[in-house]
Amino acid sequence: MAAPANSTTFSGDVWAELRLADVRDVPHIHRLIHQMAEFELLTDLFAATEELLTSTLFPSPAPPPFTSFTALILDLSPSAIVPDSATTIASRRLDLSASPLADPEAAALASPRGGGRVTAGFVICFPNYSTFLAKPGLYVEDIFVRAPWRRRGLGRMMLSAVAGRAAELGMGRVEWCVLDWNQNAINFYEEMGADVLPQWRICRLTGAALDKYKGNQETSADGKASE
Amino acid sequence: MAAPANSTTFSGDVWAELRLADVRDVPHIHRLIHQMAEFELLTDLFAATEELLTSTLFPSPAPPPFTSFTALILDLSPSAIVPDSATTIASRRLDLSASPLADPEAAALASPRGGGRVTAGFVICFPNYSTFLAKPGLYVEDIFVRAPWRRRGLGRMMLSAVAGRAAELGMGRVEWCVLDWNQNAINFYEEMGADVLPQWRICRLTGAALDKYKGNQETSADGKASE
Repeated sequence: MAAPANSTTFSGDVWAELRLADVRDVPHIHRLIHQMAEFELLTDLFAATEELLTSTLFPSPAPPPFTSFTALILDLSPSAIVPDSATTIASRRLDLSASPLADPEAAALASPRGGGRVTAGFVICFPNYSTFLAKPGLYVEDIFVRAPWRRRGLGRMMLSAVAGRAAELGMGRVEWCVLDWNQNAINFYEEMGADVLPQWRICRLTGAALDKYKGNQETSADGKASE
Repeated sequence: MAAPANSTTFSGDVWAELRLADVRDVPHIHRLIHQMAEFELLTDLFAATEELLTSTLFPSPAPPPFTSFTALILDLSPSAIVPDSATTIASRRLDLSASPLADPEAAALASPRGGGRVTAGFVICFPNYSTFLAKPGLYVEDIFVRAPWRRRGLGRMMLSAVAGRAAELGMGRVEWCVLDWNQNAINFYEEMGADVLPQWRICRLTGAALDKYKGNQETSADGKASE
């Protein structure tokens, strides 16, 4: 397969690392979120800015990973990864000798960690809570791998690593959402051991419909109006 | 309508308060979660204990309300509420003169706040995160009103108050889930201004299917097995 001009071709052994993100990763996270919105046909909902991502995902002081909003980055490296116990969540070798991979965004998405690394995906997750279990769980808001890096087991690596970390933290569940038309994803998740719950629907109050409740929590003696 | 033996009848004016819960509310929260599981036909998933609720909902030191798992209690009082700025989220008068209300569990669910108050419902919520907005939101895990107190505008009071607080905190969304067969709830939520999203499905990894990922986040050089 001929690589497009300007693309970088990866072949032979490459190393994948899932690691905790830091503020230097914000520009790439922003770009990847937009790619995800395009994939989900939801760009009309996209309003993220680098400034908002920085202030909401990387507050100071930083809470411990997985106790609040937590961003993880998937980097691919042309040389072996030396795991860092403070930031590496998972790593593995990928053998591309049978199917070299052309990445047209390798330059634009060069990892801030350097060393020829390229950022290929991300995860955003945070704790949720099950009252039936009376235990925290982990909610995976996003798990995304850029198109050229798909079908290489990287999504499985990322979700397995996050599930492993949640299980070791004593959490009762890992949950996330899937679009009902994304059958590839549904098949993958079911194969990973997840149940896709048929009966629950998400309700969302946002924008002007949410803003109209501002001030509505004020104490009121009006007992008639909303009965 | 004749009240059952042992029930307490409320008539005339009563006052509702939605307030921050504390550890003294745990026995009632536990009882109400079980009632909710019965209503949702999900008692097979019920594994909450008072000990687990205490340690997970009321850690020490307590984080500020709505920045982590947050429990709210709905109390009904036979006398006027004096709002406490530290704990009152909303309060209102209810006029029951046209339809007195018999509560068979009033004694068992006497509020730990005393004064003839009875606990009639609860809310559990916590922050979630929207990457498209790059903003926190509020996820309402549970909102429950005991059967005798329904259809009095209390659910609306609770959800309005929570939405108001979220909007004032600058959160981008309030979200929760509903069972697709619970048409009464769907109608109510839509009337409140919420969208019920038709396409998203919840995926859940739990129990043995989750535990098998323990240790799976360890660094591995095995690049073949999961490709």
